[in-house]
Amino acid sequence: MKSLTEQLWFEVKGRRGFVNITELIQKSGVREGLCLVNAMHITAAVFINDNESGLLHDYEVWLEKLAPHAPTSQYQHNRTGEDNADAHLTTDHGPRSRGRDHQWPTRFWILRANLLR
Amino acid sequence: MKSLTEQLWFEVKGRRGFVNITELIQKSGVREGLCLVNAMHITAAVFINDNESGLLHDYEVWLEKLAPHAPTSQYQHNRTGEDNADAHLTTDHGPRSRGRDHQWPTRFWILRANLLR
Amino acid sequence: MKSLTEQLWFEVKGRRGFVNITELIQKSGVREGLCLVNAMHITAAVFINDNESGLLHDYEVWLEKLAPHAPTSQYQHNRTGEDNADAHLTTDHGPRSRGRDHQWPTRFWILRANLLR
Repeated sequence: MKSLTEQLWFEVKGRRGFVNITELIQKSGVREGLCLVNAMHITAAVFINDNESGLLHDYEVWLEKLAPHAPTSQYQHNRTGEDNADAHLTTDHGPRSRGRDHQWPTRFWILRANLLR
Repeated sequence: MKSLTEQLWFEVKGRRGFVNITELIQKSGVREGLCLVNAMHITAAVFINDNESGLLHDYEVWLEKLAPHAPTSQYQHNRTGEDNADAHLTTDHGPRSRGRDHQWPTRFWILRANLLR
Repeated sequence: MKSLTEQLWFEVKGRRGFVNITELIQKSGVREGLCLVNAMHITAAVFINDNESGLLHDYEVWLEKLAPHAPTSQYQHNRTGEDNADAHLTTDHGPRSRGRDHQWPTRFWILRANLLR
């Protein structure tokens, strides 16, 4: 059984960003198998969706509706000195594993990153 | 290590539908192991829950509350000519993998399908 | 390939509770591999997040906002005699698998439990 493990590092400019990681998945050369992609920050998520700018905009608006960032004082977690409770709450909005999926190497994988501060 | 891979095709009548795929999971004959069920459309989801019609109704009402379908103009994604941005946003509401779960062959697996148009 | 399977039982006092199961994950002694944690009740979820009391409070408030418990009559599922439709709806808010994650043995795994009644 062949496997490949990689740890990837990303930096985004704003507080929130979307990174297309499809090519990194394809790079493995695996055509069929089990692919596990973990967002290692608990304020980030990995999901699969269309590579369409309007949709990413909609996603951002939707997350803000589900868990508004401001006022930051609405979240007890922000009393710790952080101000990212909203991102902690929505971190689970994303799948982590795909298996035996013949199409996944050509899918659009997106890393939604949220700065820790 | 034994394994079984199957690609399943479904058609639902309306824009949204729920399909009980439990029997298809049971058909594998696997009693313990890793079961990965991917919804191959990014507007669909797989989840496990009670086989109870009231709950499926509640689920539908709840998804519509979280991401209303209309007015379709509220989503930039719909400027592409599609009108299913709401289904794209909620596609991640569903688990994809279950492992070493002695009970899963008898669980109620549900495929929530959303038409692409 | 080494593996460990365990079935864990928990009891919580209130209708909803959070249980830190990190130590149970660490107990496996596995430092790298595939870790699958299933909440075997469809009204419970497993997720990874900070071990911070304010955040758990925020999580509870947020779930109540997304799917309010009362009035229980708003959910058709509750006509079955149960009153936990809200917990059924939010059960998918949690990842189930983590793989090849060098950090996971030290992460804070949380079981969100909801009583069936």
